Amino acid sequence: MHQTVNEILKSGVARIDAALERLLPTADTPPVSIHSAMRHSVFAGGKRLRPILCMEAARMVAGQLPRGVEDLGASLEMLHTYSLIHDDLPALDNDDLRRGKPTCHVAFGEAIAILAGDALQTQAYITLGNLQCPPASAIEIVREVAIATGTGVGGDTGVPSGMIGGQVMDIEGENQKPTAELVNAIHRAKTGALITVSIVSGGLYAGGNPDTIARLRTFGENAGLAFQIVDDVLDMTQSSEQLGKTAGKDTASEKSTWPAVYGIEQSQRDADRLITEAFAALSPFGDAAEPLKSLARYLVERKN
Amino acid sequence: MHQTVNEILKSGVARIDAALERLLPTADTPPVSIHSAMRHSVFAGGKRLRPILCMEAARMVAGQLPRGVEDLGASLEMLHTYSLIHDDLPALDNDDLRRGKPTCHVAFGEAIAILAGDALQTQAYITLGNLQCPPASAIEIVREVAIATGTGVGGDTGVPSGMIGGQVMDIEGENQKPTAELVNAIHRAKTGALITVSIVSGGLYAGGNPDTIARLRTFGENAGLAFQIVDDVLDMTQSSEQLGKTAGKDTASEKSTWPAVYGIEQSQRDADRLITEAFAALSPFGDAAEPLKSLARYLVERKN
Repeated sequence: MHQTVNEILKSGVARIDAALERLLPTADTPPVSIHSAMRHSVFAGGKRLRPILCMEAARMVAGQLPRGVEDLGASLEMLHTYSLIHDDLPALDNDDLRRGKPTCHVAFGEAIAILAGDALQTQAYITLGNLQCPPASAIEIVREVAIATGTGVGGDTGVPSGMIGGQVMDIEGENQKPTAELVNAIHRAKTGALITVSIVSGGLYAGGNPDTIARLRTFGENAGLAFQIVDDVLDMTQSSEQLGKTAGKDTASEKSTWPAVYGIEQSQRDADRLITEAFAALSPFGDAAEPLKSLARYLVERKN
Repeated sequence: MHQTVNEILKSGVARIDAALERLLPTADTPPVSIHSAMRHSVFAGGKRLRPILCMEAARMVAGQLPRGVEDLGASLEMLHTYSLIHDDLPALDNDDLRRGKPTCHVAFGEAIAILAGDALQTQAYITLGNLQCPPASAIEIVREVAIATGTGVGGDTGVPSGMIGGQVMDIEGENQKPTAELVNAIHRAKTGALITVSIVSGGLYAGGNPDTIARLRTFGENAGLAFQIVDDVLDMTQSSEQLGKTAGKDTASEKSTWPAVYGIEQSQRDADRLITEAFAALSPFGDAAEPLKSLARYLVERKN
C-alpha cells in the first residue's frame, strides 16, 4: 500500500526540515544577522511542496528514495525562499506578512533581506555542488535548475521560461488589462518552472532515462500551472487569516491572474483538466506513480 | 617571449567581452527591462580582472589557453557584477555612480536592479552548467565558486570566508572603530574570496593536480588581499573622476579599510609584501608563471 498524501507530506516535511537544519549555517555562526535572516524565512512554516515533489519523483524512478536526495530537495526550497524574500521587498510587492509571520525585511531590515535572499540562492548551489549523485547528473541538475530559475532564455531544455523572467513579467503586467497569453506565460515562468524542475531534477538524480525525464517534465508543467491557478483562486476567495498572507492583493493591484481572465468556475475546471493531462504523462509508471499523483490531486484541492 | 601585461589585459578584455556578449540574453529579448539592466551593468567598462586571472591560471596549468575557458571567466564577471549591483542599492551603499555611469537602480529602478542582480547570479550557474570541461571538474568548480561567493561557512576548501559574508561584515562594521582583525576578515571575504576562486577555478578547469590547486589558492589569497588594500588606498587618495565612482566614501562612512588601521605608507608596504608571498607560491612553475605574476604586479601598481 502507498502512503496517503498526508503521510507523504508529513514525512517529507520532517526529512526536508532536517536537511535544511543541517545544510544552513546555524543562527549563531558569524555574521549572525544574515544567518538568522536566512533561517527566519526558511523555517517560517513552508509546506515544502517542491522538495516533496522532487523526492517522490526520485522515488518513482529509482523504486526507492535515493540516498541523499533530500539535499537536492532542500536546495530547491532555498531557491523558492530566496525568491519570496526578494518578491516581498518594498521595491517589489512590499509585503509585510508571509506565512503569518513578518517578512524578512520587516524582521531584519532591507539590506540584510536582500543579502539573505542572495545567500540562499548561493547556498542552493553549494548544496548542488555537494550532491551524492554521479558528477554528470549533478552538473545536469545545476544547469536545469539555473535555467528554470533565470530569466527564461538560458537554454532549450523544454523549460518554457524562468522564475525571474516571470517575476519581471508580473511587475510589468501590473495595472495593464490581463490577457490570456500574458497570464499563461507569467504562470508558467514564475511558479511553473521551479515546480517542473523540482520534479525533473528528482528524476535526473535517480538516473532516469530521457523518456522518463520528458514525462516528468510534462507532468510538472501541467501540475505546476494547475497549482498556480488554484493559488490565484484562493487569493480571491480566502481571507488573509486563512492564507497566512495578505489576501486580495492580486485583485487590488490588477495582477495578471487566471480567474481575472477566465473567472473562478472556469479556472477550477482548467485546473482539473491540467491535472488529468499531468496524470496521462505518468501512465507507463502504473501504480508507482500513485504518490506523485496524490500530491498533484492535493495541490488542486487544497484550501490554503 | 611572454605578452606584456597590457597585451594580456587587452586581449583578455576582448575575449571575455565576446563571451559575455554571447552568453547574456540580448537586450531585445523579453522581458527586455531586465536584460537591458543586466547588460547595462556588465558592459559598464569593467576591467575583467577576475576572468583574466582565471584564464591566465588555466593557461599556466595547461600550457595553453584551454578551449572554452572564457565561459568560466565570463561567469565570474557575472557574479562580480551582481554583487556590485546589489551593493550599490539604496538599502546598502546607496551609490549613484559606478565606473563613471549611473548605477543599475538609478538607470532601471530598484525592483529591476534587484532582479537583474539575482539573474546575473543565476546566469553564472547556467554558464557553469554548460562548461566544456569534464563533469567532475565542472561540479567541483560550481562548489568552489558557490562557497567563495556565499556567507563563508559552506565548506572547508580553504577559502577563508565568502563574498556575501564580507558584505555583511562590512555593513555591520560601519561606524565602529575598525580593528586589524575585522579589516583583514572583511577584505579576505568581500573581495579576496572571489579573486582567489577565479584563479583556483581556472586551475581546476585546466585539470590541475591538488598541489597545483593549493599553490594557486595561496597565490590568489595573497594577491587578492593586496588588490583590496590598494583599492582602499586609492579610495583615500584619488578623486571621483579618476576612480569613476564616488571617492572617499569609505572614509565618510568610517568603513573598515586597511589604511584606516595601518596608514597609507604601511598599507603600500603590506601590499608589496603580499605580492612577494604570492610569487613564492608559483616558484615551481618558473617562466610559465610570468603572465600571472605580471598581472599581480599590475594590481598593486595601478592608479585607478
